[in-house]
Amino acid sequence: MYLIIVGLGGIGRSLAGIASENGHSVVVIDRDEERCAEILTQYDLLAIAGNATDKAVLEDAGVDRADALVATTSDDALNLMACWLAKRYNVRTLVSIVNQKEHSELFKEVGVRISENPDEIVARSLYVWSENPDTQLLASIEGGSIFEIKVSDGAQGVSKTVREVSDVKDMLYIAIRRNGKLIIPSGNVTFQPDDVITVFTKKEAEGRSVEYIDSLFH
Amino acid sequence: MYLIIVGLGGIGRSLAGIASENGHSVVVIDRDEERCAEILTQYDLLAIAGNATDKAVLEDAGVDRADALVATTSDDALNLMACWLAKRYNVRTLVSIVNQKEHSELFKEVGVRISENPDEIVARSLYVWSENPDTQLLASIEGGSIFEIKVSDGAQGVSKTVREVSDVKDMLYIAIRRNGKLIIPSGNVTFQPDDVITVFTKKEAEGRSVEYIDSLFH
Amino acid sequence: MYLIIVGLGGIGRSLAGIASENGHSVVVIDRDEERCAEILTQYDLLAIAGNATDKAVLEDAGVDRADALVATTSDDALNLMACWLAKRYNVRTLVSIVNQKEHSELFKEVGVRISENPDEIVARSLYVWSENPDTQLLASIEGGSIFEIKVSDGAQGVSKTVREVSDVKDMLYIAIRRNGKLIIPSGNVTFQPDDVITVFTKKEAEGRSVEYIDSLFH
Amino acid sequence: MYLIIVGLGGIGRSLAGIASENGHSVVVIDRDEERCAEILTQYDLLAIAGNATDKAVLEDAGVDRADALVATTSDDALNLMACWLAKRYNVRTLVSIVNQKEHSELFKEVGVRISENPDEIVARSLYVWSENPDTQLLASIEGGSIFEIKVSDGAQGVSKTVREVSDVKDMLYIAIRRNGKLIIPSGNVTFQPDDVITVFTKKEAEGRSVEYIDSLFH
Amino acid sequence: MYLIIVGLGGIGRSLAGIASENGHSVVVIDRDEERCAEILTQYDLLAIAGNATDKAVLEDAGVDRADALVATTSDDALNLMACWLAKRYNVRTLVSIVNQKEHSELFKEVGVRISENPDEIVARSLYVWSENPDTQLLASIEGGSIFEIKVSDGAQGVSKTVREVSDVKDMLYIAIRRNGKLIIPSGNVTFQPDDVITVFTKKEAEGRSVEYIDSLFH
Amino acid sequence: MYLIIVGLGGIGRSLAGIASENGHSVVVIDRDEERCAEILTQYDLLAIAGNATDKAVLEDAGVDRADALVATTSDDALNLMACWLAKRYNVRTLVSIVNQKEHSELFKEVGVRISENPDEIVARSLYVWSENPDTQLLASIEGGSIFEIKVSDGAQGVSKTVREVSDVKDMLYIAIRRNGKLIIPSGNVTFQPDDVITVFTKKEAEGRSVEYIDSLFH
Amino acid sequence: MYLIIVGLGGIGRSLAGIASENGHSVVVIDRDEERCAEILTQYDLLAIAGNATDKAVLEDAGVDRADALVATTSDDALNLMACWLAKRYNVRTLVSIVNQKEHSELFKEVGVRISENPDEIVARSLYVWSENPDTQLLASIEGGSIFEIKVSDGAQGVSKTVREVSDVKDMLYIAIRRNGKLIIPSGNVTFQPDDVITVFTKKEAEGRSVEYIDSLFH
Amino acid sequence: MYLIIVGLGGIGRSLAGIASENGHSVVVIDRDEERCAEILTQYDLLAIAGNATDKAVLEDAGVDRADALVATTSDDALNLMACWLAKRYNVRTLVSIVNQKEHSELFKEVGVRISENPDEIVARSLYVWSENPDTQLLASIEGGSIFEIKVSDGAQGVSKTVREVSDVKDMLYIAIRRNGKLIIPSGNVTFQPDDVITVFTKKEAEGRSVEYIDSLFH
Repeated sequence: MYLIIVGLGGIGRSLAGIASENGHSVVVIDRDEERCAEILTQYDLLAIAGNATDKAVLEDAGVDRADALVATTSDDALNLMACWLAKRYNVRTLVSIVNQKEHSELFKEVGVRISENPDEIVARSLYVWSENPDTQLLASIEGGSIFEIKVSDGAQGVSKTVREVSDVKDMLYIAIRRNGKLIIPSGNVTFQPDDVITVFTKKEAEGRSVEYIDSLFH
Repeated sequence: MYLIIVGLGGIGRSLAGIASENGHSVVVIDRDEERCAEILTQYDLLAIAGNATDKAVLEDAGVDRADALVATTSDDALNLMACWLAKRYNVRTLVSIVNQKEHSELFKEVGVRISENPDEIVARSLYVWSENPDTQLLASIEGGSIFEIKVSDGAQGVSKTVREVSDVKDMLYIAIRRNGKLIIPSGNVTFQPDDVITVFTKKEAEGRSVEYIDSLFH
Repeated sequence: MYLIIVGLGGIGRSLAGIASENGHSVVVIDRDEERCAEILTQYDLLAIAGNATDKAVLEDAGVDRADALVATTSDDALNLMACWLAKRYNVRTLVSIVNQKEHSELFKEVGVRISENPDEIVARSLYVWSENPDTQLLASIEGGSIFEIKVSDGAQGVSKTVREVSDVKDMLYIAIRRNGKLIIPSGNVTFQPDDVITVFTKKEAEGRSVEYIDSLFH
Repeated sequence: MYLIIVGLGGIGRSLAGIASENGHSVVVIDRDEERCAEILTQYDLLAIAGNATDKAVLEDAGVDRADALVATTSDDALNLMACWLAKRYNVRTLVSIVNQKEHSELFKEVGVRISENPDEIVARSLYVWSENPDTQLLASIEGGSIFEIKVSDGAQGVSKTVREVSDVKDMLYIAIRRNGKLIIPSGNVTFQPDDVITVFTKKEAEGRSVEYIDSLFH
Repeated sequence: MYLIIVGLGGIGRSLAGIASENGHSVVVIDRDEERCAEILTQYDLLAIAGNATDKAVLEDAGVDRADALVATTSDDALNLMACWLAKRYNVRTLVSIVNQKEHSELFKEVGVRISENPDEIVARSLYVWSENPDTQLLASIEGGSIFEIKVSDGAQGVSKTVREVSDVKDMLYIAIRRNGKLIIPSGNVTFQPDDVITVFTKKEAEGRSVEYIDSLFH
Repeated sequence: MYLIIVGLGGIGRSLAGIASENGHSVVVIDRDEERCAEILTQYDLLAIAGNATDKAVLEDAGVDRADALVATTSDDALNLMACWLAKRYNVRTLVSIVNQKEHSELFKEVGVRISENPDEIVARSLYVWSENPDTQLLASIEGGSIFEIKVSDGAQGVSKTVREVSDVKDMLYIAIRRNGKLIIPSGNVTFQPDDVITVFTKKEAEGRSVEYIDSLFH
Repeated sequence: MYLIIVGLGGIGRSLAGIASENGHSVVVIDRDEERCAEILTQYDLLAIAGNATDKAVLEDAGVDRADALVATTSDDALNLMACWLAKRYNVRTLVSIVNQKEHSELFKEVGVRISENPDEIVARSLYVWSENPDTQLLASIEGGSIFEIKVSDGAQGVSKTVREVSDVKDMLYIAIRRNGKLIIPSGNVTFQPDDVITVFTKKEAEGRSVEYIDSLFH
Repeated sequence: MYLIIVGLGGIGRSLAGIASENGHSVVVIDRDEERCAEILTQYDLLAIAGNATDKAVLEDAGVDRADALVATTSDDALNLMACWLAKRYNVRTLVSIVNQKEHSELFKEVGVRISENPDEIVARSLYVWSENPDTQLLASIEGGSIFEIKVSDGAQGVSKTVREVSDVKDMLYIAIRRNGKLIIPSGNVTFQPDDVITVFTKKEAEGRSVEYIDSLFH
């Protein structure tokens, strides 16, 4: 895959690392020359210091033969315009961070797949965690959430089978991590101390579910 | 809950917003006076300009009666020390961002629950997305991943039941989102165009699974 | 008219002055607080320090009842997004500076009337002037240009009628300025020393025309 | 032509580009070393970092054999002095931006051809535009203005000849742009939808004229 | 006297002090607001933060009723333009520092009395001093210099009359300072130890004269 | 002469120029590397970037074989310490600018010859000038001043002999500059239009003298 | 005591705290206004923003009735001059940090008691410590050093009397700290595990002594 | 010894100098590239620009084979984390500055030997000195202090033996410095004018002791 990354903040740098380590052709664009110089010392990729809304810069980055462009800056206007210009060069896959939720519609109109404000996602997860220290929010989707809980020694649910502790509606055991192995929880599997359980729950059942698994496994 | 938030970067600000809007008592600490002044105009909370490793600052923030402290700065050393000091004041729940993976051990020794580098998490998700534009990585756990895919009109899997399209081992349908409603996919549920399907897959089956659902629903 | 101006650089400030002096309701948006504070001391208008791509800022600026939004910043991406957001609030007239010619298409798609890079326009005019000190480029349109020349004392064209000196095709006398009065040049009007003549010429005739009027009036 | 350009702001850079691309010998002077270094990478010219009121700098720039000097900085005092010094070296053509209208007289006394504040010119044009979205001010001369209007489909003036719609005094059709071609509007030419018409009007007739063409073509 | 001072560097500040302490009406103009605020705490005068080439600023400073304007900035272009504008308001006395000797002519053409680069004047005096530690250059005029020397105890010239030690041509004793009193040296006055003698000498006699008085009085 | 100059402000730079052009060995010391680098491109001397109170720096500058050290910075404390250290290396001649009059005593105790605040000297001269535009203060000594005046055409004193116009006590004609030549004014010399006359006057006679020569020659 | 402190770096701030908490009248002088404002919120003292070599500033600080002035800045020239000026006001006690060892002589000539570069003192102590982790350098005097060592459990010297372990010449036991009590070590006192022993040793015996006590008590 | 120094402030730089001049292998780590570059020109060591809490940086610094790490920054959190990471690499000796006293406990838990806030130590010493100008505090230990006093000519204690002037309990003469030689004060030694005496005193006897020796030797 030929991938153009716009922006070398934390996310852009991480992405550049992952993509280049996976053997893809990566070009990064950032306004800051120092950042560009620095990343060249770390990964095998191409870095261009310039404005990603400047066609000359995009062309230097090889936008006409790119498979994907990912915009990761904290400036939605720049992200949007870079994606839009890339679309005119027929870049097939356009992905962007959207820093302000209200801008999502504009990106969708241009046909960009978006990832809403990452800071907010992390903050929500920390929030749940600070409320329920033994339960961790893994992901949120519309209408549901995915949590993780570690089974305490001597908890009530220890040695019970999955089937026995599935009383709550709209909740689902997705996985059990035990000694570095991952188990898909069929009905007969029994829970053990130190298991880490991944649970799915509908939004309307979230309170009930968290309470239920907390009482069982903590 | 009485919550102390250290750092008013993007994550800290979001967290401050969520927590205060949920009616908790929130105190934020940041070195930058302007940031402190600004957040006071947005939320109903207390803001202290100072260094969170300074005991006088922590005491001003009411660390002795706090239920939780969440460290969100990009400086792991500061996060670690703030958590450790809070622990000495018997703050029950300690949560921190860990910016550099190698520091995780130190935080764990102090008893802090950690959230690894958020930039990396987002970057990994963008990476998967730029490779499989119709599939989105929702979350990663040790040994497994949770994905999302939207069912194209006319895709092969349309009108099939969940049971019929469960041939791949180590993969699990978690949820279906349809017209704003969320369905737990029991075996007889049939897939429809525009459904958004949430799927769990073990790491070792990830390639196979993504390929399988891509061929079915895209 | 209710007018929102984005950006308080040289152009934005001038525009704010003209519009408020003409009795319109003017709101200016600029990221820089000092600039906002300063303009308030000069004109009777409203100034908001903030990012014009932030919906809350636009709403503070009264975008829902604005008749026009004019984007004047040197950042095309910001100009574009501000206009697009304003369009969603049904602002009837959208006008923007376009700093990089290649971006014009995107603005047109959004329905923005555009004005290309003002620096370039001025530079072109200075260029013509430095080449032909006695001829001044007034404006450029697609396919044609409008020039001005001052009639020297004793020049060949003095005392000739307009009809007598209209040999060149694709050239047109638009106006004559004489002693502070403006004359529409009908065929019988004669040229006088110190007249300032405004001339239109097609692009393909520009060289020929400039040479012709230079030989006549200089 | 041997041309010295003082100042590398937006206008100076554009001018440097135009002049060097037209094959002239260009020397630019700017106080900022970085700007000088940058423009050298773009065009084939000479750049001198220094103060253009310093005789040594002007001599390095070859002022004794220059045909023209164009001062483009935002500092009128500097522009004025640079022109004056150049005049003492017998530079034939002196051109300058004048940022503050009140300074024009001083420049004229020194014999400099001036271009008044470019920001103001652009701002006036944007202002007219935001008031009359379908009419664009192209240029202003003493006593008159040049406008442009696009003919709407189904407007009253469509299919009329130039002669039929010339009722207003002190107004003149200069040009019609149709499908990328430019037509000099003789009396029998008929207007078509999507034509862009260039119109000249005396100042005292401006209100009347704009109203008239608006009613006809919009 | 109503005096406008342009620039609040070292010289401008000193001048403002002297003039206001002598009971004149003083207005100072400087671009820097802090400098303006500071001087107001020291002297009884008016301070305006702004550009002295801006007519509105000059008018605020009362240029239409000023007796004199003194330009003291290190920017000759600004000094020149400020003086020129003041002249148009009929300010009778125009005085300016000229930082670069080559600019003197332009100032003279405008009718400004100039004081050449003060740094150079001081430097010349330090230079003479470092060469002849016991002789101090007081002033330089075209063709001549004024020096000062202190009479050492036991020097050869002690007890001699002025007439006896006037052998060198083109040299003149101007004054003798003795015990805080100043004596005009007529021929019969005798020199005493610790007298400070002021001497005038023509340029062509400078070497000879300094040598002569050095041998006599040191 | 081997001369060390401390400080590369305006005075230091001028002094460096004068001394090196007179063929002396010059070493300059300034904290600012850029200033050091710049002066090296202008004169044939040695420049050391460092603190002149640092013995290592002074030794690099060759303080042990220097004939003179001149301190020209605006920081009296630095000037004083640099001189004092130089004295310990037996530098024979120590000269310094003294920026604040009250510090003079300390410099004298160390044995440094001082030049009081140059800004004040220049300011006093400008002050006299703005009061008496046709008279210029050349120098001030304790108890007396030296002035210059240009003889106007048709002035009362024209064609008079020196003797005839010497009525004022405590005033002395020092020199006459005529057509680039300098004349020592003996009693029979007559004044001519355009002569520039240098006059000495005691402080107590200053008002009277300036008035007298003004009435004669202006 | 009436104490003036010059400089509000780390040392100055600490000193201000100690002195004001001990009930003395304290005035601090620092060039930085913010530092002055900040310390006023912490202690009950007077703070003056200004240059301590400015007599007006010193007088505002009450130098004429001060008992002591302590100069703590990192600029020796400033420290020296401030002390010298204070001496002229008959301040009895003058103390100063000396940052560069070579300047000590000048301070002594003025009669200032000095404390040599504190950074160097701390660094020397850290150095000894990193070499001998169980031995800590407490202080250095000309010709000798004072060390501290903690007695390990089971070390050879445990239960021995002071007299028994005094074989090394030029070494002296000063004190023993045991359970928060301090014992003057007379000959019969026996050492115990966890005692902290303070030892004096002459410079020439330092190596031998440290080795000896290390072998005994570690 | 292989020594890693974290931080190149005053203390770090001094330490680097001492250690490298003593022939040890020294590596310094500081975030500031310029500081690193500068120290390389002064000493024979290795300098790494980076964050000492970054494992890659520590490994570049050779932490796995280092004998000691000394943290000297003003940021306790950084010092603590750097030491802790070094401990995991089995660095035997860990030393750190502790800037805020309250953090000492955390360092001790990690096993770091600490030196409390050096600024405070110096400030305390200056404080004592400004109170007792003739007595200097050399060091403070828990429960006791070490002072120095210079014997005045004609003081009461001159010519007395040590035994004669040992009346005060809990006080001990440690050393006498005379003409550059150091004497261990046995009972028969007599005090001489200009001797510098080092004295140890218990805290509770400090007031009494200082008064006693002051009355004897001053």
